[in-house]
Amino acid sequence: MKKSLIIVSTALTVTACAQLDNAPEKQFPKNIIYMIGDGMGPAYTTAYRYYNDDINTQEIEKTVFDTILTGTARTYPDDDTYVTDSAASATALSSGIKSYNGAIAVDSDKKPVKTMLELAKEKNMLTALVVTSQINHATPASFTAHNESRRNYDEIANDYIDNKINGKLPVDLMFGGGTDYFIREDRNLVNEFVDNNYQYVDTLKNINNITQIPAIGLFNKIGLPYAIDATKNHLEVMTDKALKLIDNQSDKGFFMMIEGSQIDWCGHNNDITCAMAEMHDFANSIEIAKQYVDNNPDTILVVTADHSTGGLTIGANHKYKWEAQKVKDFKVSARKLSKKLFKNSNLNQEWNKYSSTPLSDHEATSLNTAKSSDEASLFIAVKEVINARTYTGWTTNGHTAMDVQVFSYGKGAEHFTGNLNNTDIAKQLIKFIKG
Amino acid sequence: MKKSLIIVSTALTVTACAQLDNAPEKQFPKNIIYMIGDGMGPAYTTAYRYYNDDINTQEIEKTVFDTILTGTARTYPDDDTYVTDSAASATALSSGIKSYNGAIAVDSDKKPVKTMLELAKEKNMLTALVVTSQINHATPASFTAHNESRRNYDEIANDYIDNKINGKLPVDLMFGGGTDYFIREDRNLVNEFVDNNYQYVDTLKNINNITQIPAIGLFNKIGLPYAIDATKNHLEVMTDKALKLIDNQSDKGFFMMIEGSQIDWCGHNNDITCAMAEMHDFANSIEIAKQYVDNNPDTILVVTADHSTGGLTIGANHKYKWEAQKVKDFKVSARKLSKKLFKNSNLNQEWNKYSSTPLSDHEATSLNTAKSSDEASLFIAVKEVINARTYTGWTTNGHTAMDVQVFSYGKGAEHFTGNLNNTDIAKQLIKFIKG
Repeated sequence: MKKSLIIVSTALTVTACAQLDNAPEKQFPKNIIYMIGDGMGPAYTTAYRYYNDDINTQEIEKTVFDTILTGTARTYPDDDTYVTDSAASATALSSGIKSYNGAIAVDSDKKPVKTMLELAKEKNMLTALVVTSQINHATPASFTAHNESRRNYDEIANDYIDNKINGKLPVDLMFGGGTDYFIREDRNLVNEFVDNNYQYVDTLKNINNITQIPAIGLFNKIGLPYAIDATKNHLEVMTDKALKLIDNQSDKGFFMMIEGSQIDWCGHNNDITCAMAEMHDFANSIEIAKQYVDNNPDTILVVTADHSTGGLTIGANHKYKWEAQKVKDFKVSARKLSKKLFKNSNLNQEWNKYSSTPLSDHEATSLNTAKSSDEASLFIAVKEVINARTYTGWTTNGHTAMDVQVFSYGKGAEHFTGNLNNTDIAKQLIKFIKG
Repeated sequence: MKKSLIIVSTALTVTACAQLDNAPEKQFPKNIIYMIGDGMGPAYTTAYRYYNDDINTQEIEKTVFDTILTGTARTYPDDDTYVTDSAASATALSSGIKSYNGAIAVDSDKKPVKTMLELAKEKNMLTALVVTSQINHATPASFTAHNESRRNYDEIANDYIDNKINGKLPVDLMFGGGTDYFIREDRNLVNEFVDNNYQYVDTLKNINNITQIPAIGLFNKIGLPYAIDATKNHLEVMTDKALKLIDNQSDKGFFMMIEGSQIDWCGHNNDITCAMAEMHDFANSIEIAKQYVDNNPDTILVVTADHSTGGLTIGANHKYKWEAQKVKDFKVSARKLSKKLFKNSNLNQEWNKYSSTPLSDHEATSLNTAKSSDEASLFIAVKEVINARTYTGWTTNGHTAMDVQVFSYGKGAEHFTGNLNNTDIAKQLIKFIKG
């Protein structure tokens, strides 16, 4: 009798430990919040830490990124270039399939691949897209539509109605821009959404007029204006509203993709001031998502990037420093600053409205010379001043191939560690959805 | 009786599980292999994956880095520049203390800080330094010496004898370069090592003449030649020999720091061909260390970088591609190539000895123009051709501030996950040494 009891005891021990060890393996999260910083290569998160540093304290404060980093991801597309675009990368991140640059949820043979948003809808989860680009731009499109080219914006927008999943529209909640594509002469998709009982608003400041899902908010003709030039917390406002609308609306949980779309756009412009403002908004949006996970532990938050943009480097031109405070000194994007300078006859006076550091003689000469040519030249010259003052480096107007970072938090976060392929992230999230 | 047995069973269960969960917390590794890729920012490991890609297979092969990545690290020094040099970073990585750029194991008040190598020696562990720079260069120096400036090379070299730990010399095994500093008119440190029963060799090909520790191998006057121009596996040869010499020579275990020193030097030169050859040698050295861990599970391997050099980007100049195969096409460093071209009257003929792709008319014109000026101009022009052909970007001859990667393997590897401060790495290794 004693012996048999001991055997039972050992068996219990092993079972109990196995359950402890494997518990996260078997319990998949109900809700998925998937955040993509478009173009947000590793240089952007490091730069943001120093940009965000409170110079009145000795310590260099950690950012939200620093608290949830768990791994990195390889982003190469399905060709021999190694450098992906947002479409191929978003297809990898939405479906687990590598494809060619330009592909919107189609494989290299241009055949549609199933996305996790579609799968979530099949499983009767609620679905949402929250972006600062037009909502039919490459990243959100690769979750919702299928097209051989990201440039077929109208066809892609049509899919947001036509790509029905078990007879239902694919996305229950959409925030972003894009009335140019959704309200067209040939087809008014917004009317079709409304006919399908979607609430609709067309300005960000009226977002709270939306009281329930399904809903669509299209807050600009194409993408939203840069955060630094308009609503500085545009993504944060949309993220907060979206999570409040979707919270506890379905027993099956939800899938929400949130994109910091314009980190990439600022990167393409090689505009560090613009990029850091978008990073700040994206970071604050992550904080909100993290708080949601804290309040709803049955949720996984995964944050990553699709690629790095612009070949950003923190430090440049042989100096061992990066002037974070001088980045903060600029109050508008380089694009807006150059427009203002181009229109105004007094260059120095106009400059001083947007920067507390007056132009040096050398800088003024350079800007005046460029201004006498055209606005495009002035835009380049303005960026040269910003990059030189801050020791910010860029090597391209396009993308680079460096691995991106992977951040995860909440239930199942332990699956997103180490160096992953970007397709591995999708495959794991798809496993969660399949249950 | 039954009740009491059940209670015992529960107690056993809890204890057993706690031991399983906490086992790595309480059992510290006996041996530490600490590898530092100098200048090896994240762009270098991604670039190396694509450089290393076998184009005859569909898959993109993983590198050793991809198999052991566990986190990232913040590298900023103790000032407001955010961009560290190798001395401040090595001081952080050796002692857990942030200091100023140029500091060799001294704090911001220039007071010596204890390094993990010194602590290991105090604990009667064996100690080793294996590098491709001179062994008194900033990184190894910050483990062994204390100086207010990395530039005081002779004083630093003296510390390798004078910085006695409990009456013993600090380092039992040293491989690298540096006879210029160790055999001087004012002091012959090599003789002093020999007087202290160290074996000594002065050429890499004779490394196997060393049969036991203590030993010192100084294989060049200053640093070793670039791998691509001389011994392509220089670090691998030294790593393999060092691990064989130190293996099982002490019950107390060992501390070994291995540095891929010249990844940084190639980066300062903005020479991708040179950098990738050093990366290949460093990767193969990590494979050897990993194998050592497999054979000696009581060992932790930690790999990281001190900072990123050159502002390397994979892809540049607005093209979405990186030409890895064209990097491989160059058979020598840009430095050696420009020397050869400068000395030879037939530029095209000489070029074809080192690259299988002949010069275009445009490239030949550019090189000939530079050659007619001086060798330094030709060096720059050669690099412009390499960078243009391969779409490799650089923004500085100095360092940048981007977080570096952290890789770990073996006993205690779970302590090196997430985003760390570089000082956290040191603090954890010091905990291991303290036991």
